[in-house]
Amino acid sequence: MKLVRFEFDDKISYGILGLDNLITIIDGDIFNGGYIESTKKIPLTNVKLLAPCHPSKAVCIGLNYHDHAREMNLKIPEEPLIFLKPSSALNHPDGKINYPAISQNLHYEGELAIVIKKEARKVSVEQASNYILGYTCANDVTARDLQMRDGQWTRGKSFDTFLPLGPCIETQLDPHKLSIKLLLNGHVKQTSTTSNLIFKVPELVAFVSQVMTLYPGDVILTGTPSGVGPMEVGDTVSVEIEGVGQLNNVVVKE
Amino acid sequence: MKLVRFEFDDKISYGILGLDNLITIIDGDIFNGGYIESTKKIPLTNVKLLAPCHPSKAVCIGLNYHDHAREMNLKIPEEPLIFLKPSSALNHPDGKINYPAISQNLHYEGELAIVIKKEARKVSVEQASNYILGYTCANDVTARDLQMRDGQWTRGKSFDTFLPLGPCIETQLDPHKLSIKLLLNGHVKQTSTTSNLIFKVPELVAFVSQVMTLYPGDVILTGTPSGVGPMEVGDTVSVEIEGVGQLNNVVVKE
Repeated sequence: MKLVRFEFDDKISYGILGLDNLITIIDGDIFNGGYIESTKKIPLTNVKLLAPCHPSKAVCIGLNYHDHAREMNLKIPEEPLIFLKPSSALNHPDGKINYPAISQNLHYEGELAIVIKKEARKVSVEQASNYILGYTCANDVTARDLQMRDGQWTRGKSFDTFLPLGPCIETQLDPHKLSIKLLLNGHVKQTSTTSNLIFKVPELVAFVSQVMTLYPGDVILTGTPSGVGPMEVGDTVSVEIEGVGQLNNVVVKE
Repeated sequence: MKLVRFEFDDKISYGILGLDNLITIIDGDIFNGGYIESTKKIPLTNVKLLAPCHPSKAVCIGLNYHDHAREMNLKIPEEPLIFLKPSSALNHPDGKINYPAISQNLHYEGELAIVIKKEARKVSVEQASNYILGYTCANDVTARDLQMRDGQWTRGKSFDTFLPLGPCIETQLDPHKLSIKLLLNGHVKQTSTTSNLIFKVPELVAFVSQVMTLYPGDVILTGTPSGVGPMEVGDTVSVEIEGVGQLNNVVVKE
């Protein structure tokens, strides 16, 4: 099932996107499962899609693809490396990515994002799937020059608009068998499969939740495969994940 | 004026703490200034004090005290180094700090925190004071071993309970002339003055707001002076800032 968040008639709602590209509006809270489908349907083309959730934080994972590790000639890490993007960086499907005036090297990083369903604190690997609502596409936009200059990755990763999410949350997926691609102006720049993930989805939820409580709507970005590279003003960048859909954003001058 | 947030009769309220240790309850929103003082007063001893705000994020500043730079034999940085603590790490005055089972080296870092008053995006140094509600005490609790092992500071800084804030927001202060102390079981471990800040308060607000939008209640932790060190289970750690008050927390086994 594909859950979407959207704006229509100045109102923000959740809905279920059907194969016919009609959205069935739902009432209630998708995170507690206590929602009901209404009888109202709206064509997808009539709404403005929003990021499908509003995380209190995005927890991101460093090096987590075997192909990316080989490409960079890096050792496979023994445990996940985590960093944060703030909620203020959230961006929408079709939202503009600002190229900061103080950066000269803006990069894309296409990623599969886990969307948390309910409060998760010290969850085990075995229990982790109960805390996952579904999956969406993410772009871990990075000012590579600032990331490297600072040593700490926070500034280079945290500008407003640097966390595009969407277009939907797919709730029924095997997250370890998905083709993942990043396209720049339609040309494939990253292509891999989530079977290359070093730390699998349940391990990530368990690991992060040992450190910090995850709230409904929080996201974990699972890392990027090989092929990261620069974007320029005017570029259209797309993250495409099998079974989820395509997240498209245009880079603009700040 | 000292603003406090507290729980009384199962209700969370804001109030103004008087010299007589009576709290005058206020109605309305302290961040937009649209509040009025009620006629109700409650003794401080009757309430449970909470962290005086609920930040969407805490932005922390690396090396920012001249005395700490001298102590560590480090060069004065050319620009602030930022990192994040998530909202899930928030802790209260008198709240317990959990010593994580996976750390063997838990440290205190006493800090002055800036509390943001209204949405701040690309604010200039000159305008910065208009976006500040006031100041509080913070402890940037750090699992030093995990911080060093990871290289990225996120995990070592982000455990639940690692962001004690309080006891109040003092709205009328010159933030660059304050004595700041950290006491462990009553013994002074850190002592300095905020006149030693390398990057001053308006510079920090301006710098951070160039990167990310700051929301009402967000905090900027301005860095820690010399003398950081370890805490053990059972220790009481206190951050004391002139004109603000004392923030006390006990370390407990996770």
